[in-house]
Amino acid sequence: MTTQAMVPSFNDSQLPDVYDAVESEVRSYCRGWPVEMAGASASWLTDTSGRRYLDFFAGAGALNYGHNNPLLKRPLLDYLSRDMIVHSLDLATEAKTAFLETFQRLILAPRGMDYKVQFPGPTGTNAVEAALKLARKVTGRESIINFTNAFHGMTLGSLSVTGNSMKRAGAGIPLVHATPMPYDNYFDGVTEDFHWFERVLDDSGGGLNRPAAVIVETVQGEGGLNVARAEWLRALAELCNRREILLIVDDVQMGCGRTGRFFSFEEAGIKPDIVTLSKSISGYGLPLALTLFRRDLDVWAPGEHNGTFRGNNPAFVTATAALEAYWQDTTFADQTLAKGGLMRDRLDAIATSNPKISARGRGMAQGLKFEDAPTAAKVCRAAFERGVLMETSGPADEVVKLLPPLTTPDAEIVLGIDILAESVASTLS
Amino acid sequence: MTTQAMVPSFNDSQLPDVYDAVESEVRSYCRGWPVEMAGASASWLTDTSGRRYLDFFAGAGALNYGHNNPLLKRPLLDYLSRDMIVHSLDLATEAKTAFLETFQRLILAPRGMDYKVQFPGPTGTNAVEAALKLARKVTGRESIINFTNAFHGMTLGSLSVTGNSMKRAGAGIPLVHATPMPYDNYFDGVTEDFHWFERVLDDSGGGLNRPAAVIVETVQGEGGLNVARAEWLRALAELCNRREILLIVDDVQMGCGRTGRFFSFEEAGIKPDIVTLSKSISGYGLPLALTLFRRDLDVWAPGEHNGTFRGNNPAFVTATAALEAYWQDTTFADQTLAKGGLMRDRLDAIATSNPKISARGRGMAQGLKFEDAPTAAKVCRAAFERGVLMETSGPADEVVKLLPPLTTPDAEIVLGIDILAESVASTLS
Amino acid sequence: MTTQAMVPSFNDSQLPDVYDAVESEVRSYCRGWPVEMAGASASWLTDTSGRRYLDFFAGAGALNYGHNNPLLKRPLLDYLSRDMIVHSLDLATEAKTAFLETFQRLILAPRGMDYKVQFPGPTGTNAVEAALKLARKVTGRESIINFTNAFHGMTLGSLSVTGNSMKRAGAGIPLVHATPMPYDNYFDGVTEDFHWFERVLDDSGGGLNRPAAVIVETVQGEGGLNVARAEWLRALAELCNRREILLIVDDVQMGCGRTGRFFSFEEAGIKPDIVTLSKSISGYGLPLALTLFRRDLDVWAPGEHNGTFRGNNPAFVTATAALEAYWQDTTFADQTLAKGGLMRDRLDAIATSNPKISARGRGMAQGLKFEDAPTAAKVCRAAFERGVLMETSGPADEVVKLLPPLTTPDAEIVLGIDILAESVASTLS
Amino acid sequence: MTTQAMVPSFNDSQLPDVYDAVESEVRSYCRGWPVEMAGASASWLTDTSGRRYLDFFAGAGALNYGHNNPLLKRPLLDYLSRDMIVHSLDLATEAKTAFLETFQRLILAPRGMDYKVQFPGPTGTNAVEAALKLARKVTGRESIINFTNAFHGMTLGSLSVTGNSMKRAGAGIPLVHATPMPYDNYFDGVTEDFHWFERVLDDSGGGLNRPAAVIVETVQGEGGLNVARAEWLRALAELCNRREILLIVDDVQMGCGRTGRFFSFEEAGIKPDIVTLSKSISGYGLPLALTLFRRDLDVWAPGEHNGTFRGNNPAFVTATAALEAYWQDTTFADQTLAKGGLMRDRLDAIATSNPKISARGRGMAQGLKFEDAPTAAKVCRAAFERGVLMETSGPADEVVKLLPPLTTPDAEIVLGIDILAESVASTLS
Repeated sequence: MTTQAMVPSFNDSQLPDVYDAVESEVRSYCRGWPVEMAGASASWLTDTSGRRYLDFFAGAGALNYGHNNPLLKRPLLDYLSRDMIVHSLDLATEAKTAFLETFQRLILAPRGMDYKVQFPGPTGTNAVEAALKLARKVTGRESIINFTNAFHGMTLGSLSVTGNSMKRAGAGIPLVHATPMPYDNYFDGVTEDFHWFERVLDDSGGGLNRPAAVIVETVQGEGGLNVARAEWLRALAELCNRREILLIVDDVQMGCGRTGRFFSFEEAGIKPDIVTLSKSISGYGLPLALTLFRRDLDVWAPGEHNGTFRGNNPAFVTATAALEAYWQDTTFADQTLAKGGLMRDRLDAIATSNPKISARGRGMAQGLKFEDAPTAAKVCRAAFERGVLMETSGPADEVVKLLPPLTTPDAEIVLGIDILAESVASTLS
Repeated sequence: MTTQAMVPSFNDSQLPDVYDAVESEVRSYCRGWPVEMAGASASWLTDTSGRRYLDFFAGAGALNYGHNNPLLKRPLLDYLSRDMIVHSLDLATEAKTAFLETFQRLILAPRGMDYKVQFPGPTGTNAVEAALKLARKVTGRESIINFTNAFHGMTLGSLSVTGNSMKRAGAGIPLVHATPMPYDNYFDGVTEDFHWFERVLDDSGGGLNRPAAVIVETVQGEGGLNVARAEWLRALAELCNRREILLIVDDVQMGCGRTGRFFSFEEAGIKPDIVTLSKSISGYGLPLALTLFRRDLDVWAPGEHNGTFRGNNPAFVTATAALEAYWQDTTFADQTLAKGGLMRDRLDAIATSNPKISARGRGMAQGLKFEDAPTAAKVCRAAFERGVLMETSGPADEVVKLLPPLTTPDAEIVLGIDILAESVASTLS
Repeated sequence: MTTQAMVPSFNDSQLPDVYDAVESEVRSYCRGWPVEMAGASASWLTDTSGRRYLDFFAGAGALNYGHNNPLLKRPLLDYLSRDMIVHSLDLATEAKTAFLETFQRLILAPRGMDYKVQFPGPTGTNAVEAALKLARKVTGRESIINFTNAFHGMTLGSLSVTGNSMKRAGAGIPLVHATPMPYDNYFDGVTEDFHWFERVLDDSGGGLNRPAAVIVETVQGEGGLNVARAEWLRALAELCNRREILLIVDDVQMGCGRTGRFFSFEEAGIKPDIVTLSKSISGYGLPLALTLFRRDLDVWAPGEHNGTFRGNNPAFVTATAALEAYWQDTTFADQTLAKGGLMRDRLDAIATSNPKISARGRGMAQGLKFEDAPTAAKVCRAAFERGVLMETSGPADEVVKLLPPLTTPDAEIVLGIDILAESVASTLS
Repeated sequence: MTTQAMVPSFNDSQLPDVYDAVESEVRSYCRGWPVEMAGASASWLTDTSGRRYLDFFAGAGALNYGHNNPLLKRPLLDYLSRDMIVHSLDLATEAKTAFLETFQRLILAPRGMDYKVQFPGPTGTNAVEAALKLARKVTGRESIINFTNAFHGMTLGSLSVTGNSMKRAGAGIPLVHATPMPYDNYFDGVTEDFHWFERVLDDSGGGLNRPAAVIVETVQGEGGLNVARAEWLRALAELCNRREILLIVDDVQMGCGRTGRFFSFEEAGIKPDIVTLSKSISGYGLPLALTLFRRDLDVWAPGEHNGTFRGNNPAFVTATAALEAYWQDTTFADQTLAKGGLMRDRLDAIATSNPKISARGRGMAQGLKFEDAPTAAKVCRAAFERGVLMETSGPADEVVKLLPPLTTPDAEIVLGIDILAESVASTLS
């Protein structure tokens, strides 16, 4: 959610004074939802006044298994209680061993992915930075292709491949080495999308620096819930393969089951060269990130990329528990697809009532796009007043984005979307 | 510790196979200390075979209060048990409110620091990236001055101000917008160190792009325990002030009491424009980072810099507990200075026995520099075999660096340094 | 002409040994035409063996009025004989005054162009560098939009907006701050060309750094005689105007009457913000270049851009003579269009005989494109053996480019193209 | 001469109106010397009012053999009269052959310089750009070391290694890939100058990108007549050799005999890897430039760097004539040293009379430095009013720079310096 949408909001802020007095103006979510949160459980938050909120935001996708999921909480408390090692840089630890073995056994092996795993630091932007560095090191090229309305992070490397102009301006230096290409459906189907990209790559006089890699999200969450079709992703993967350009899928937000299967690109049947994971990989909201890549790309020298919090063992513990609990088979993925279908049906129902609203999304990343952009923020505000958290996204904050925990019961999904429908109605009336 | 020093080490690796099979070659510490860690308490680690290690490494400075410190563990377990909110982006939460109020009350206010606090993402490199972005935004300039042998992080912005050539090469693009200047004592006292910097700034034909900021560590931990004198820091602060260049102190490793007082720059009596904190700020090894800056520099737009794990509430809880436990008065700082003195005395004793060894450091960041660089790695290996963890640092890995938890009892400090002395003796014999 | 096409040519080089012994391998034209030239007159060159060559190359467009044109030669010899000042930096001189007044009277005023004139150094690339610097200074933006297969020069700024990948690689650093867009007809009419450019400019999440300027050639000579349609140029000019992006027309090769009127963009009815001129502006092959811009863009500080050979007075003298001789009215432009028509008719005749050949060009910049690219170089070689100089262009050297002096008599045009036809026939037989 | 010094000058401008009306504000020399020049001969200029000026400026060093030197004029007129080829790109021509053979015979061979010659375009900045490109291509590195107060040209590559902050700002983009180091005597002899450079190169943690090349002027003309000592140049050459960094001497202004011998670095006994020449190489003020380099560095691909005016045959003709006339033996060099000695004696005499003035320079590049910088511009103005042209240089325009033609008779040297003495006296009185 950018701030344009959220700033002019609640006058009756219930925030303690210390936020205004001490925290930087950069703070953002607490402006749109100006209450002090206390407890959280499954799909519900409780503020310090006792008011409850249905969470259709899920930590921007970091809480796919809900708040304080007991299946993860138990081993976490156990681990911490027993004075097991918490912080370990990249030492071997029991918790890390268990995570690596489980990730290999439940995620990589069944999918035939012969990948190496890097712990690049515990945030999505660390994972993206490591991916870009590796792609450049492997290819000896500097340039990266990104897509319109991409979001990859706030550190300099990640920011250079991010689209949002307000955030780019924050760099304070010209962001170079990245060239945007149109994302799927950017031209509303009129233009074949790879026409330009492939033609200019072909052309020795095209003036495009030959790219090391393409970085892509399968669904652009921050960019407005833009969904790439499976055939577009396949065509992109094939193009990259033909040109010996590495394909990086940034699955930080859409991975870990958000769109159904564990990786959001599985449905398309592609195997990216490099994959980034973060947000819900720990499952409990604890910082953790992975950069995965084809075994033959593992040209890192020992210690060439490092970071203090790579060994966040509580996160390994909850991550392992989450994999064991949800990814032994396809039950959870199937359930997500079903819940996503439920969401979409309900959203379509809202959209069909109004030609200026359309539903969009994939899996349990769903939303409504408003032709009149400011409406979206008003709808979110109305929903918040009714006790549901959902944020806007898209270049003009024109999309109401719904990212409920994947574990949200159907009844609560229906409840939330009913409240959304009310909020839309009250806003437009 | 760079890897040159550590790779040719233990043949008898006790690491589970999954590390070699699945984790990227970039892994590093587990090569020098090839055992699987399990438990940890205060200054001790235990591996899965039951062997114990005295920790003179402390998570590279992230564990100033020791492993699983009970003063922090209790509120952490309590918080988690009660299903309080864990992940909150930058929403207001009880835990965050408590941290902000405590940090303001115990750290900022008593030191007369009218600073704003930004949560830039939970790692040191996030904090440095935010600092550089803000400095550029405030000044409208791009260039940054860094110092020889600086270490600031692995994402592109931070890497561009880091000295290590191996790590810089990992960027895969030319790192620009930063110009190194000689750190204090770089020329062994022969040359007045700011001569060149100030002269070239003065000179309209000097060819140096006018810098937005200078970024400096008061003690360069990774750079080889190089200590800047208080007068050098003051001269640097005055120079920056005269030229309207912002001064960023990167206190990620040396802050939080490592050198005595909470901030490592307090002793010099300077007030930097921007300060970065991470590593030991959560106190428990949980990811957390802060970027602090003068109130008038808070020109961030809401949401202009963001990140998923800015609201790591368990870290707020332990951070608050750590502040309450250790920073109510100067007792802890005084104790650290005393322990640091003890360390230095013992190290000086080792050094005086051998003209090719010298002691160096400040507070409880102390070490031995070996004229014959490869000796340092051999000494660390010998110490590990004797059950003490310490790593090398410096451009040639020529320094054995000691960063024990600040809470380490005197007897254990003596024990560790006795083992170090033995390790030196056995290595040189 | 790139060198791939020309290197494997004549075995019987008649070049003096000193070229191989002393001149750098970078030399190029003397490889394809390995004879030593001596005299030159109008459209003819004579080598030291007395062999004559009909010049359909004209110094790559620098000799629009032919070699040693007597109308220019007379005042030049007179000027030099009378010991008038030759080199004057940017002092005022009689010769410069005369040029400025004449350029103002015959070129700017009649076209209603209220432009300032800068002498940026005597070559095309100096003019382009000045244009880019000015555009960035005026707008405060760094980014430039260039077009596929553009050619603007070999110094770093100009090279960054040039398309040819071999020449770009010569920079030795990543060329940044420029983004290529598709030139007119890049997609063979299938796609509306500004769709992508305009859409991504519109989109606050598009990820395209907002450009200072667009730089464009109306006909891409080096790029393969690609001709932009007048309506495309108008649409581009309107787009730039709407977005407050400066429009730079690089008229170095296509200006000075090559396409008919003095400026190649006149036909389209646009008024660029900045125009570069060089090559034929002196008229006699003497180095001279101009950067022209709207009066209100003249934000240069005195001396902010300079150069030793800005005051090449012999070039001012011949430039003034050329303007007086050819640009008092539209006779010359009309004649060029007629001759261009003659060329095109004859080329079309060649093309109609072979489906793998097509004619292309505008005014007296005309050529043949060969579907089988290597044929073009073979045709040029065959033409050279028959005494006609013409070079290849285009990303694959697939176009035989004809740039005869504009003063070439019709009979010689016919002669040259007849020889071309023979060369094509013999090559394809 | 920068413009600060010159702008607030003559009210009684005798410039034709067209300059103010049509020429860009970037014009500079015509502001300080606001008269319209007409004729020129040897060391004298004549304006259109018939007033004569003794030229102690010599086209900023482009007229070492004086204006319209008859020894060069005769073959030039002959060449032009006979309709020999004027413009030839990089075709072989009789005039180019003669130049190459003569340059090889009289300049390279006698000095044992096994160099290749590149014609990179006809201006100094073209030669510098080619040198930087080649150094980067050969080494595969991006970074260049330049020196404080260097001047190398106005196109982007050259500008990035130029010191002047006003000119750098004209780029409109951050100038990167270059790091300034202190020029000889930058610290007034207090500091050993290579201490910092060599130390930081040595240090794997120094943070300096390993440079492809060092670019240096032996005497910084624009930078204020700073003279590098022979031993400093030798030490620099040795340092570059030890580190496998290429040494580029930019001899554009100080070459062609300005300091005595043909190359300004001969006295120091060094052999740079790459040398740039321009300004006086044609001898007649006609645009010409060379980039010279060790034979083994000639890794250019044919056509990888090109330019329209590389084959400026009139310049080849005068250049050959100049070499034949002045460089058959050491007579001319010896005479220049003698005249330089005469200049220096006279300047020393002025300086000894006033402690705030000092003489500086080498060969016939001599000047006076004024402790009170604004005095220098006033002195130049006073000299102009008395009929002598001399300009200021240095970062604060604090130096009156004397660059008379090398052919200036002793009596005119004395006359000019007597007028300078008067101008100093009248300015200070």
